[in-house]
Amino acid sequence: MYSADRRRLERNGHLLIDRLAVLASAMSEKTDLIGALNWRYATKEFDAGKALPTETMERLLVVLRLSASSFGLQPWKFVVVEDREKREPLVEHSWGQRQVVDSSALIVMCRPTEFGEADIDRFLESTASTRGVDLESLAEYGGMMKGFIGRLDAATQADWMSRQIYLALGNLMTACAIEKVDSCPMEGFSAVEYDRILGLADLGLTSVVLCPVGYRAAGDKYASLAKVRYSADEVIVRL
Amino acid sequence: MYSADRRRLERNGHLLIDRLAVLASAMSEKTDLIGALNWRYATKEFDAGKALPTETMERLLVVLRLSASSFGLQPWKFVVVEDREKREPLVEHSWGQRQVVDSSALIVMCRPTEFGEADIDRFLESTASTRGVDLESLAEYGGMMKGFIGRLDAATQADWMSRQIYLALGNLMTACAIEKVDSCPMEGFSAVEYDRILGLADLGLTSVVLCPVGYRAAGDKYASLAKVRYSADEVIVRL
Repeated sequence: MYSADRRRLERNGHLLIDRLAVLASAMSEKTDLIGALNWRYATKEFDAGKALPTETMERLLVVLRLSASSFGLQPWKFVVVEDREKREPLVEHSWGQRQVVDSSALIVMCRPTEFGEADIDRFLESTASTRGVDLESLAEYGGMMKGFIGRLDAATQADWMSRQIYLALGNLMTACAIEKVDSCPMEGFSAVEYDRILGLADLGLTSVVLCPVGYRAAGDKYASLAKVRYSADEVIVRL
Repeated sequence: MYSADRRRLERNGHLLIDRLAVLASAMSEKTDLIGALNWRYATKEFDAGKALPTETMERLLVVLRLSASSFGLQPWKFVVVEDREKREPLVEHSWGQRQVVDSSALIVMCRPTEFGEADIDRFLESTASTRGVDLESLAEYGGMMKGFIGRLDAATQADWMSRQIYLALGNLMTACAIEKVDSCPMEGFSAVEYDRILGLADLGLTSVVLCPVGYRAAGDKYASLAKVRYSADEVIVRL
């Protein structure tokens, strides 16, 4: 009885210890969001030899797809270019910045060149189908959105779409930081040349902002520079 | 001997079980980013009786402050309004939406009404001081940024600042989802009235977008609606 008890207790003890080790390992992945945001920097030099694991890339694309947008209208497409040959001609239209080709993948965040009632109808159909409700029950809501969109001139509408894309960019960059993936948001490029070279115009798209993703090169001297941010009392106003 | 062994084993067992409980509790906080983004929705009804813990609110403000922006210029201020009396008059200028007052705090995301060379000089000083480098060593970089800003007309410059603020909004909303804090980005408000009522114009600011934060009301029927998102092949283009 004594030795059976003892063996049982010891066995349980070892099982518990093993279990603890697994948990401790998982714990070490617990997100430190502020730590991740401090780790993040606009990567100037990517390690062209390191590709994102497929599942990491796919997770980032899910994150993008889940981004919030005005009325949920998702006025965007995310163009993913992994092929380096396709990216090489983009460098000269990106202020010579090599990130567009040395990163693991270049995400070209695009808006449609036109956005109108047909896009809202498509969204209403998606809503009706996802939620299992009649399209007719969404008519008033659709009319309100069409009224909103219709009142915007072309430039304001383009700007409204671009803002949604920047919201998605913020979401993507935060996800990258959490996943320990390096990124570098880029506004310095010629949208006209990107649209032409990548055939985006033919897809009814125009490029808004770029986000190369991948892993920092060991030698990127920007990685070790202190992050420059105004203090809380310079950017937070409490009323 | 038997009872001493047994006591030792039992004590170890209890220690292990206690440790497991702590780890399991911590584990439950491990970030499931995609789960968090699926949990998030544009909260229509906040529980006015539930305030964010101070440390949670402060963490969200740190997240905002750490947001990325074009050249790192941070062309923004985040106005936090917790006082409900100050928020009540905003409702009628927010399409009647009660979130602005029922949330735990309303974050009014603002851009400066003017942005120019003085702002870039201030940023260069902040950079020199943070990184311990001579201001002179940043002169070329400063000239480049001044050239960029100077080439934008007023409307484009305002748009450029607003985009940065939407990037910060995306970062904030993702942080909220991770922290299990509800939020509701809002474009439907009168910036002119907000600026007047909150005295933002006097601070050289104009409101761009709102983000109330807090906790969803138990009765918010929008919480249980399925999220509507286009499928991957509708928003992701692989070249």
